Amino acid sequence: MDIKTPTLLIDLEKCRGNIDAMLKKAQQSSAQLRPHFKTHFSAQIGQLYKDIGVEACTVSSVSMANYFAAHGWNDITIAFPYNPRELDDISSLAGRVKLNILIESEESLTHAKQYLKNSVGYFVKIDVGTNRTGIDPRNEYLIKSLVGQSTDQVQYKGLLAHAGHTYGCKDFDSVKWIFDGAVKVLTDLRSKFGGIISYGDTPSCSLMDDLSFCDELRPGNFIFYDWMQHEIGSCSVEEIAVCLACPVVAIHPSRNEVVVYGGAVHLSKDSLGEMKTKSFGKAVKLEEKGWSTKVIGNVSRVSQEHGIIKLNDGELAHVKVGDVIGVIPVHSCLTADLQGYYLSTMGERIEKMTKN
Amino acid sequence: MDIKTPTLLIDLEKCRGNIDAMLKKAQQSSAQLRPHFKTHFSAQIGQLYKDIGVEACTVSSVSMANYFAAHGWNDITIAFPYNPRELDDISSLAGRVKLNILIESEESLTHAKQYLKNSVGYFVKIDVGTNRTGIDPRNEYLIKSLVGQSTDQVQYKGLLAHAGHTYGCKDFDSVKWIFDGAVKVLTDLRSKFGGIISYGDTPSCSLMDDLSFCDELRPGNFIFYDWMQHEIGSCSVEEIAVCLACPVVAIHPSRNEVVVYGGAVHLSKDSLGEMKTKSFGKAVKLEEKGWSTKVIGNVSRVSQEHGIIKLNDGELAHVKVGDVIGVIPVHSCLTADLQGYYLSTMGERIEKMTKN
Repeated sequence: MDIKTPTLLIDLEKCRGNIDAMLKKAQQSSAQLRPHFKTHFSAQIGQLYKDIGVEACTVSSVSMANYFAAHGWNDITIAFPYNPRELDDISSLAGRVKLNILIESEESLTHAKQYLKNSVGYFVKIDVGTNRTGIDPRNEYLIKSLVGQSTDQVQYKGLLAHAGHTYGCKDFDSVKWIFDGAVKVLTDLRSKFGGIISYGDTPSCSLMDDLSFCDELRPGNFIFYDWMQHEIGSCSVEEIAVCLACPVVAIHPSRNEVVVYGGAVHLSKDSLGEMKTKSFGKAVKLEEKGWSTKVIGNVSRVSQEHGIIKLNDGELAHVKVGDVIGVIPVHSCLTADLQGYYLSTMGERIEKMTKN
Repeated sequence: MDIKTPTLLIDLEKCRGNIDAMLKKAQQSSAQLRPHFKTHFSAQIGQLYKDIGVEACTVSSVSMANYFAAHGWNDITIAFPYNPRELDDISSLAGRVKLNILIESEESLTHAKQYLKNSVGYFVKIDVGTNRTGIDPRNEYLIKSLVGQSTDQVQYKGLLAHAGHTYGCKDFDSVKWIFDGAVKVLTDLRSKFGGIISYGDTPSCSLMDDLSFCDELRPGNFIFYDWMQHEIGSCSVEEIAVCLACPVVAIHPSRNEVVVYGGAVHLSKDSLGEMKTKSFGKAVKLEEKGWSTKVIGNVSRVSQEHGIIKLNDGELAHVKVGDVIGVIPVHSCLTADLQGYYLSTMGERIEKMTKN
């Protein structure tokens, strides 16, 4: 591969393997897979799902919904609280595709009912413990006031939750503890308020075998996975499907470090660990058609364009200026957001949506 | 202002004020201002410098150099270690503009001398304590082997340093301590090896009055400043020239928090503080032509699209879904990198370079 600047490599075979495994699990649980596309931002990568019969997707913004609608996706959930300021764009899109929105307050639902010009489905967002968005499940008074409505503008679909606090877990048991709690909360609420259950963070969906409590699964990250998911236990290193190819520009033997072209504007500043264990990514060797899964160092610091890699013992002697090192990202969604495009391990340029 | 989605507001008057102050300081120190453009990425904003006679700039990548060259900049330093893999692009650009590169190893200099098709200036990068790139100043043997060369391909310009470790300072005295050390190291090396001294991180350049030890100043961040620079003491809150306008999408009275549309893909994940004081930005009220400098809350968490703002006491009652809150970024360079464009406080759309 002819790498000049930091380039996000993608192994489409690994993506397909990750998708196949998740679709199989959804089918065994009799749940519909509605994957989150905020991980890859790419119509070409979305096509991998279409190829095996997935017809519905999740996005995190109206602009992303518009992008995927323009690329043939006709059943889209915007898994972000309804933003009244995007009324016109939501209205317009709802006239073209089957669109679902998220509601968590009376003012948002009232606004949608009053002003939307085309019909949308809506989910009531339940907070299963992440403390980000959603209604406290104990607040049944509020939930009751929002569920079940059917007007020309809004059609109740069900309850939606995202157990994002599984991203802070470090083992199976803690993910299972969160998952079991979410199952209890959501099945209890559904028995009272009806509708379907839409659920799905990557750790829960990867680690739990039986997801039959829900009707719809919305994981996104699993198509790529990353080092964070590996530390949680969601995936093996072999299943991680993206790797940032970074040219080596400086060698510092006294610190056992190399500096690569590949920094915060390529990897993001998401990190794992603290102090000496802090990591912005794991260094691996590139191979002819991909990358090795053997870690040779840790990206211990990043600045805007620089990554500083602390190499494992014995590795420095094998690296020189002009080489290219692979970096497995800590958080593939944020790394993907920062790219203009992907390069497949077969050498194909893969387009994605960009900001404008 | 008609804000629908997270939008980076820019106050051009504040930018002009920050530029004027820095240019005046450079002139008083008899140093040339060669501002770093990795903060704003924008030809229109670069024009603010042109308007007051600045003709040279610094960039952090070859693609950024190409962008600004295409917009009329003819004297550019790429302040990033020479990347042999970009030889063709560097060669080509050096045929069109006056270009300087950074060298810190014999292999890089040898490569440039052997393969460049057009002449570049080169600086030898000295590490004054950041431990990122550059040569340890005690390694005079290596420095001596690199300085002073003049061939058809490379012309020695001088010594260049970036005291990036001032970004970790919290007061004047610690910045001054780093600055004094850098002055000593660089003036000593110049007396031995000749050439000019190019220097310039925003904290040093903002806080030190006398910068006459150097010939060239390369700060970049100061045009915008940000909350990090405010905490260091480089600027007042009033001097910060960018603010992310974020629609409010959810209110959580039980936590005294609001959720805004504005997350890691808009602000970056750069942060200050730890645990309860952790901050991804400071919340302020928007005004008709800009934003207030009174802080009303702290962006305590971000996920991909969400920002969670912990409001100060008494503020929650004044915020509702559909409002827009301003967020002063922790690190304006990374926030700017994530935008498709800026919106001036006068309502003008300002273009910037994008990734492709």
